[in-house]
Amino acid sequence: MAYSVVGQSAQRVDAVAKVTGKAKYTDDFFERDMLVAKILRSPYAHAWVRQIDTVQAKALPGVEAVLTYHDVPHIKFATAGHPFNLDPKHRDRADRLILTDKARFVGDAVAAVVAADELIAQEALSLIKVEYEELEALLTPDAALREGAPLIHADCPHNILSDQGFHQGDLEQAFGRADVIVEGEYQTSMVQHCHLENHISYAYVDTQGRIVIVTSTQIPHIIRRIVGEALGIPWGRVRVIKPYVGGGFGAKQDACLEPLTAAMTLAVGGRPVKLNFTREECMMDTRRRHDFTFRLKSGLTKDGRLLGIRIEAISNTGAYASHGHSIAGAAGSKYRYLYDVPALSYEPRTVYTNLPVAGAMRGYGSPQLVYALECHMEDIARKIQLDPIDLRRKNLIKIGHIDELSDNKVLSCGIRECLEKGKALIRWEEKQKAFERQTGDKRRGLGVACFSYASGTHPVGLEIAGARIVLNQDGSVQLQTGAAEIGQGSDTVLAQIAAEVLGLPLGKVHVRSEQDTDTAPFDTGAYASRQTYISGMAVKKAAEAVKAKILDFVWGMTDIPAHALDLKNEQVVYKHSGETVLPLAEAALNTYYDTVFAQPITADVSNNARVNAVPYGATFAEVEVDLKTGKIEILEIYNVHDSGTIINPRLAEGQVHGGVSMGIGYALSEQLLFDEKTGRPLNNNLLDYKLPTIMDTPDIGVAFVETAEPTGSFGAKSLGEPPTLSPAPAIRNAVLAATGAAFNRLPMNPQRVFEKLKQAGVI
Amino acid sequence: MAYSVVGQSAQRVDAVAKVTGKAKYTDDFFERDMLVAKILRSPYAHAWVRQIDTVQAKALPGVEAVLTYHDVPHIKFATAGHPFNLDPKHRDRADRLILTDKARFVGDAVAAVVAADELIAQEALSLIKVEYEELEALLTPDAALREGAPLIHADCPHNILSDQGFHQGDLEQAFGRADVIVEGEYQTSMVQHCHLENHISYAYVDTQGRIVIVTSTQIPHIIRRIVGEALGIPWGRVRVIKPYVGGGFGAKQDACLEPLTAAMTLAVGGRPVKLNFTREECMMDTRRRHDFTFRLKSGLTKDGRLLGIRIEAISNTGAYASHGHSIAGAAGSKYRYLYDVPALSYEPRTVYTNLPVAGAMRGYGSPQLVYALECHMEDIARKIQLDPIDLRRKNLIKIGHIDELSDNKVLSCGIRECLEKGKALIRWEEKQKAFERQTGDKRRGLGVACFSYASGTHPVGLEIAGARIVLNQDGSVQLQTGAAEIGQGSDTVLAQIAAEVLGLPLGKVHVRSEQDTDTAPFDTGAYASRQTYISGMAVKKAAEAVKAKILDFVWGMTDIPAHALDLKNEQVVYKHSGETVLPLAEAALNTYYDTVFAQPITADVSNNARVNAVPYGATFAEVEVDLKTGKIEILEIYNVHDSGTIINPRLAEGQVHGGVSMGIGYALSEQLLFDEKTGRPLNNNLLDYKLPTIMDTPDIGVAFVETAEPTGSFGAKSLGEPPTLSPAPAIRNAVLAATGAAFNRLPMNPQRVFEKLKQAGVI
Repeated sequence: MAYSVVGQSAQRVDAVAKVTGKAKYTDDFFERDMLVAKILRSPYAHAWVRQIDTVQAKALPGVEAVLTYHDVPHIKFATAGHPFNLDPKHRDRADRLILTDKARFVGDAVAAVVAADELIAQEALSLIKVEYEELEALLTPDAALREGAPLIHADCPHNILSDQGFHQGDLEQAFGRADVIVEGEYQTSMVQHCHLENHISYAYVDTQGRIVIVTSTQIPHIIRRIVGEALGIPWGRVRVIKPYVGGGFGAKQDACLEPLTAAMTLAVGGRPVKLNFTREECMMDTRRRHDFTFRLKSGLTKDGRLLGIRIEAISNTGAYASHGHSIAGAAGSKYRYLYDVPALSYEPRTVYTNLPVAGAMRGYGSPQLVYALECHMEDIARKIQLDPIDLRRKNLIKIGHIDELSDNKVLSCGIRECLEKGKALIRWEEKQKAFERQTGDKRRGLGVACFSYASGTHPVGLEIAGARIVLNQDGSVQLQTGAAEIGQGSDTVLAQIAAEVLGLPLGKVHVRSEQDTDTAPFDTGAYASRQTYISGMAVKKAAEAVKAKILDFVWGMTDIPAHALDLKNEQVVYKHSGETVLPLAEAALNTYYDTVFAQPITADVSNNARVNAVPYGATFAEVEVDLKTGKIEILEIYNVHDSGTIINPRLAEGQVHGGVSMGIGYALSEQLLFDEKTGRPLNNNLLDYKLPTIMDTPDIGVAFVETAEPTGSFGAKSLGEPPTLSPAPAIRNAVLAATGAAFNRLPMNPQRVFEKLKQAGVI
Repeated sequence: MAYSVVGQSAQRVDAVAKVTGKAKYTDDFFERDMLVAKILRSPYAHAWVRQIDTVQAKALPGVEAVLTYHDVPHIKFATAGHPFNLDPKHRDRADRLILTDKARFVGDAVAAVVAADELIAQEALSLIKVEYEELEALLTPDAALREGAPLIHADCPHNILSDQGFHQGDLEQAFGRADVIVEGEYQTSMVQHCHLENHISYAYVDTQGRIVIVTSTQIPHIIRRIVGEALGIPWGRVRVIKPYVGGGFGAKQDACLEPLTAAMTLAVGGRPVKLNFTREECMMDTRRRHDFTFRLKSGLTKDGRLLGIRIEAISNTGAYASHGHSIAGAAGSKYRYLYDVPALSYEPRTVYTNLPVAGAMRGYGSPQLVYALECHMEDIARKIQLDPIDLRRKNLIKIGHIDELSDNKVLSCGIRECLEKGKALIRWEEKQKAFERQTGDKRRGLGVACFSYASGTHPVGLEIAGARIVLNQDGSVQLQTGAAEIGQGSDTVLAQIAAEVLGLPLGKVHVRSEQDTDTAPFDTGAYASRQTYISGMAVKKAAEAVKAKILDFVWGMTDIPAHALDLKNEQVVYKHSGETVLPLAEAALNTYYDTVFAQPITADVSNNARVNAVPYGATFAEVEVDLKTGKIEILEIYNVHDSGTIINPRLAEGQVHGGVSMGIGYALSEQLLFDEKTGRPLNNNLLDYKLPTIMDTPDIGVAFVETAEPTGSFGAKSLGEPPTLSPAPAIRNAVLAATGAAFNRLPMNPQRVFEKLKQAGVI
């Protein structure tokens, strides 16, 4: 179908604002006499706080408040940014206090100072005297799972947050029938989001006695609820405002700062208090990606049909639950739409340790599981000597597939075409041949990896989204959503959807980027790649409601029935011919000022989306491994995506660039390191933490296979997280092809590669 | 009917914010690197600007822009805060440019400077060289109407802005039938609003290229349109934000600053520019009340039945039209609901002069006409020797009266009861007797005056109002209106209406006080005493929509039909018994989180109110006149109002206190003075302009006659302007009773009183 605005590479609505520095982030706002806060952090990974002496700190001139465990509500709350669940059994684990009386990782917050400026706050921290009683630090899942290990949370036996998996089909029978059994162990690393804008919030009590929190978050409406819960106050007494946000990637899908910021303003009589994390704090005390250890066992026929897979997973969630059990669960659910496997068993254990808290991060468990699964598929292909693309093709699911556990049906699926396209782009066969017999210090190889994902969280999570559209007198509209622009471009894409429905150029859709829980429609926020698909549905619904009202109004003005009318190019037109009936602006003016019939047109809609579309994709990588240095160079890399209709190709390409780059860092260099004895972070800064720079990033090839998803707005599916899922296994598979060495542990940095190649006898 | 929240003297929702200084007014916001603006004003009342040399001013370091007539769009626009009219014939006169090439009063803006700070801006003003060509200054309507007088606006012959009146019945026949003819001339003075917060605006271009104006205004949505018109840009590209406002009284029902502020930010590339008027500027170049000269002629039967009245009025609108012709028109329409007069002729002329611009001010023409009419009624009573209360009673209209010209019907009328109540309060008969034969230097007298008014502007103006209500998870609601809180208490009253419908305590209605045209429902704003009546209707409609949705949702939850349910005390109850079905908060939580039926509840409504209720009232005053000094002391004063149901008695009383106090100033001391030759303002400051202080203000008695207006929310009619209508004539009539001298010219300050008494031979 030909669209006017959808499918166009329209310039971001915030492009100029962002490149000129006009866009306002949380730190760009200020209140009169804003106080600043600093946090006192535990130097121990596991210790009781036996006593805190704050007398001297409080006496320091300029200090307005010092808070400890004794000064905050003793209400345990969950920080994960999920919709509230009416069923207490399905809520996230409430294991957090605003300030703790037991340190559970190095950096855990035991006290907070509110002062006139940062220097005073910093000095006050040094005047607080804390008496700790050290406990054994459990720094690995193994240590935490050890019989007799101390409990990190008293109410959590064996330090296991959750072990809920699933079984489907008869796995033992499948393994019994199998011609071939393949087993493997795969391990991912701890990485951090490294969004450009650190975590920052400020809060004050407003003129009506409500707490207002301005914060860099992906989930303003959820933050409102969590702050209400943490403080034990009615949620309506909290107001959250989200300005522009400089990235989140999941680390801001969590209430990291807001409950404390709110508690601090209450401690100083409602005066404004700002909490602005340093990069070091961000990398220690917000969230990180879960490291997983997987053990996979597959049974298949000799011609490569998968009969059954068992996946055992241990997920290290760190000191507090956050999204822990949910991520292990999500990892187990999203790959099921890729291969048609009669028997599946997923057996995860999410384990508390005395390390920083793991939480949501782009892909939400899938980058880990897709890494394991797609390495494993390569291993299988090698074992049965089948081309890895052919192995995959043999097992791919087909349109119409219904997932047994979720009852969700695949209505669009372009993975076959993605594989074809990627194969052609990288010239798979030609290069396979060329790389057959390599000698010398530099070896080249090709790798592939696929994925399936989801668009939102249905049926596990609630998918409420809202949009409000107001028709202005000049025929332009204001668009308000509850969806959160966090840098990904959702304001632009959602505006394109509205513009398409209303026959407007994009410039006539004035998007309100800020979400304010007082005025923004309710929407759970930016996560799970849900906004284009889920929030887009709400925007389309609102735009269609506005359109219907406009056509109905014009019916009244002209006596031409609404069903004979349409909106195109800012005109109300005859639907059959496109001929102009009257300019939209004229109709709009009448909706405001007709003395009898005036009724300004707005639509304020909410949508409960009980559908979930499955996006697909694949990465193709060509690498060159320098055997002497262990350095892996990516010569070519292509991500080919089926995300349904692409609403904005240029923005979509940007998403893929970012996701692949994140995948490359995940594959080759990134890893949070901790002292093995004390649990002290070793590289929580952007110098020592090896995020890829532009020099480490190859040209990233992007291609799309545009299927038409029936449930998506104009056929769209999700694209936010998918690009980051398959690069790491594709690179690993290419390195295996190049060197014969299977890297089953991330990251594949030069030191590890060198050691592994040596150990494997390649060098 | 017994209400829970309506009728209660609830504390203002902004009370604490305002007394603690937390409430933010326009000047409390700031943008990074805000520039400031100053205006160069004409020293001549009437002069062509022949040349402006801005070279030196522009060269001054820190000056960012100097604007003159040549730098602004040459689009004439109207500043009056009225809804746009689709019919060009019914629009306000567009006679204004952002900066003028012809000065039409002393203070007219001929250039503006934008600079880094105020001192630089001030200095730059002194560096601008203007060459004027002086014209004859027309400083009175007489001068302006003189044959051959220069035209103030080239396209306006005879300097008459408008002379549209009306005739009803056969006046000549009425005068012919009359037993008695009474004639009189009455003259009111120029006064100024003297709101606490001066006019202030700032503007910048936002991240999407739209102009944002933060301004102290009564009419945010109208300002958006006027700025669009003045700059010749689509109205959707303008966004207006109204924070708390420190009073307006009509002076902010006009686009005084905003078009220039917007033009200035465009001149400096969208950087923020603030224009903050001094008190002196406010009193010279915003708006003032029209001074009127009336000539009344009445014919009546010997027993006091009015047969016909002719009213000739000359209204001095100053240099630009603003609300001019509309105020003369309104003055002619609102008193028609008071006395049943078979023949009426209203013959106004609104005349341009070279004085500051007259515009809307509390009462909008009625304080002038009610003064004339109610002085005239006293004069009639004296002529036919009838008690003035009896004269009025004989002629009052009755419920069911239909106004011939507007077709509007009186559905509630408590004026008779108001007269009874006021008479009793002041002990009319007892004092009349006591005052019969006075001697000595101090003489006492009683006076009375009545009025009828309107609630909004229907059918002359469009009465669109909007409200949006969001139900929170805790059962509280957010209320957004387009109505403007400007100090009068509308946020509180509108919240009470919502609370009453929804069975909530007032504290559970979180009012958003700020109006932002991007998110606030469309409403034309705070004027014409319309908000409780007109905007209240929209709030009630929204609350009822929310209530219906809640009850419907609970029907789904409980299988109890919605019609059997009601909301009371934060509970969903059985309507027949009041027994709780479930807490509202539980239902609310389900509207957000029921996995299948969740649909957060909001209502976003607009209402086109094509009704108009007539409020009534009377002032009773007892004065003591010191014959030796000419000083008038008000010993007792009572305003008795029929404003239908009183939603909040304490706030209503506050409105009456303010209005009566304004009426007292109008009667006794206030007057803008100008040099008779040059038109230069002589007392445009709060030292020389004699606003009554607390020492000049007597205890003000307030009483209400609560009729139930069928069209009002919970029976309410308007109260904003009415209190200021009748004090001045009541005081004048009391002075006449005390001294025998008829003061037909305002103000009755000691100098005038002394002179008049001398001239009348009293002293």
